[in-house]
Amino acid sequence: MNPIAEESMKLHREKRGKLEVVPTVPLNDAHDLSVAYTPGVAQPCLEIQKDVSKSYELTRRWNLCAVVTDGSAVLGLGNIGPEAGMPVMEGKCVLFKQFGGVDAFPLCIKSQDVDEIVRTVYLLSGSFGGINLEDISAPRCFEVERRLKECCDIPIFHDDQHGTAVITLAGLINALKVVDKQKEEVRVVINGAGAAGLSVCRLLFSAGFRHITLCDKSGILCDGVTEGMNPYMAEMVQKTNLEHKTGKLADALVGADIFLGYSAPNLVTADMVRTMNRDAIIFACANPTPEIFPEEAKKGGAAVISTGRSDYPNQINNVMVFPGIFRGAFDVRASDINEEMKMAAAMALANLISDEERSPEYIIPNAFDPRAAQAVAAAVAEAARKSGVARI
Amino acid sequence: MNPIAEESMKLHREKRGKLEVVPTVPLNDAHDLSVAYTPGVAQPCLEIQKDVSKSYELTRRWNLCAVVTDGSAVLGLGNIGPEAGMPVMEGKCVLFKQFGGVDAFPLCIKSQDVDEIVRTVYLLSGSFGGINLEDISAPRCFEVERRLKECCDIPIFHDDQHGTAVITLAGLINALKVVDKQKEEVRVVINGAGAAGLSVCRLLFSAGFRHITLCDKSGILCDGVTEGMNPYMAEMVQKTNLEHKTGKLADALVGADIFLGYSAPNLVTADMVRTMNRDAIIFACANPTPEIFPEEAKKGGAAVISTGRSDYPNQINNVMVFPGIFRGAFDVRASDINEEMKMAAAMALANLISDEERSPEYIIPNAFDPRAAQAVAAAVAEAARKSGVARI
Repeated sequence: MNPIAEESMKLHREKRGKLEVVPTVPLNDAHDLSVAYTPGVAQPCLEIQKDVSKSYELTRRWNLCAVVTDGSAVLGLGNIGPEAGMPVMEGKCVLFKQFGGVDAFPLCIKSQDVDEIVRTVYLLSGSFGGINLEDISAPRCFEVERRLKECCDIPIFHDDQHGTAVITLAGLINALKVVDKQKEEVRVVINGAGAAGLSVCRLLFSAGFRHITLCDKSGILCDGVTEGMNPYMAEMVQKTNLEHKTGKLADALVGADIFLGYSAPNLVTADMVRTMNRDAIIFACANPTPEIFPEEAKKGGAAVISTGRSDYPNQINNVMVFPGIFRGAFDVRASDINEEMKMAAAMALANLISDEERSPEYIIPNAFDPRAAQAVAAAVAEAARKSGVARI
Repeated sequence: MNPIAEESMKLHREKRGKLEVVPTVPLNDAHDLSVAYTPGVAQPCLEIQKDVSKSYELTRRWNLCAVVTDGSAVLGLGNIGPEAGMPVMEGKCVLFKQFGGVDAFPLCIKSQDVDEIVRTVYLLSGSFGGINLEDISAPRCFEVERRLKECCDIPIFHDDQHGTAVITLAGLINALKVVDKQKEEVRVVINGAGAAGLSVCRLLFSAGFRHITLCDKSGILCDGVTEGMNPYMAEMVQKTNLEHKTGKLADALVGADIFLGYSAPNLVTADMVRTMNRDAIIFACANPTPEIFPEEAKKGGAAVISTGRSDYPNQINNVMVFPGIFRGAFDVRASDINEEMKMAAAMALANLISDEERSPEYIIPNAFDPRAAQAVAAAVAEAARKSGVARI
């Protein structure tokens, strides 16, 4: 066991859970009891019965997010089941509170059936202000999210998709400034067509990128050629790889400006980077071992390099995204987290780095930058208002 | 609006929810993040994957209770729906933490279909150490509880039934000592054949009471005579009213020693109490307005009187029961909360009052007696061990 794993086991054994549910009200005598509980509590109940929106004023709903998983795609560990996923979900809830002031509670569902997951979350949606889906394997995660967005009147957000897309876009905005290229002109290769890859692809199109090629284990995805794609891949592939290239990842990279990896360790070599355009941008997000280590990417001539690791510059870390996104959505009681809000979050993060500060080694704020969640929250709240999903 | 309702509204508006979800671990820098979250967190995940029981050691499950309702029978307010039931559920969770040190989290389900409630709770049962059902209307509550006990490997407890039964039995044990009567000989009339009435009836039989008559709005319940009973009433009625009496509540009370009401305001008069045996015991638990006020019951000659109100002696209040029951069950990782554990809880509560202290006005400890939850927890844990449901 490595030292971090060992220290983590010690912490988990000692704390026996990383969350606690604590009262916000005093309860020291019979009077307190009569006000916080019976008979006084009947009054807020009746007010909510008359007007359900009062649940946001008289209960914790205004600030409460469920972190929901089925344990099917936990970290890089795969399908380890709901109970085994709990340490990650508890950790996520800690981050929600620490960075966004959001009360988050973990729920691990003992089913990997889409219908059951959707129905379970819907039936609980009156108890929460928002739902963060987590570590549900693709392509089921797309259907779970789509259907929950249809039936629930609270924000549904799948962080593995959209958190990653937001921080990627934020980083790319600054990386393009560093190498002085335009988003409309650059050629992007995304390796990995799962939750992260497809969501990144969608947000980049929304942001104005035009030339994107998707790859997965089978190589370049090509409309009319590649077989066995799920409907979510097939839909995206219609808009990508318009030259109908075929071949392997190495073929896709020839002449590309940007590589974005959400795939597996060590798939990219310095030689492959050498075949890319001058001043290549590499985001190698496989974690903990990236598609290519920064040292190697530099050998290949890459100009800006980002990974998922905290021990290299430019860490791609969703922790800068989801706490602020939910904080902003909750602050205006948003009914949804839409493309406009994600885009606003990415811009806000990119803008935290000034022209003077920006460099190949500083395109993404530090994960602990105290301005991140605040800036994201403000931008997201404003975007929610402008796009008509704010309810207060 | 009365002053308590007004004060309660003020509290609920100011606090905007009576619970908060807070981290138990530090998260101040990248090292903390790597230990509480990725990559360190993978280790506890893998340990739980190998052995699910480790979820009790490495996550909050060991101390976590879901408070679940469908909003169908909230307080005396009736079927007000899941969102409107939330202030009560949050209050209940505050009591769990305050009195039992139990982390409790409220979940209000947007369905009143038994199959859906059971399935939803089952699917979430891997995230909790126990389930407290709350304010689900009879007879659905009986089926929900029975089926959940069958499919879940954690304690399922319906407080409206069993909490009430335990505190009633505790009070009766001491009331019988006050009037010097034996449980095997006294004649008990229970008015109300819903969640509370039927559960009280069952626990009294388990405790050795022999002569019980159940009444409801239609009058005395009589096997072979009363029509339209649900299966749970029908089953209990086979063991009660062995003389096959018929008639109204007033008829049942003639010659009875004990009246237990879980019904509606002002159903019992002083004149009716006068027809009971000498030294009658009256537990009038309809709340806030009891079946008979203590002043009236005294006029009728009652020797020991209890209500659900905090402004009269001998308050019947479940808050002395459920926090200690779950504390005890959690302390030994019980797989169930069985009859033996409930009985032990009642005995422990009764025994808190010494022979010297015991009087007609002091048969039940005060709701804020700090010894209550502790005594209940210790007795429940021991009973769990003896009855074979303790897992540590």
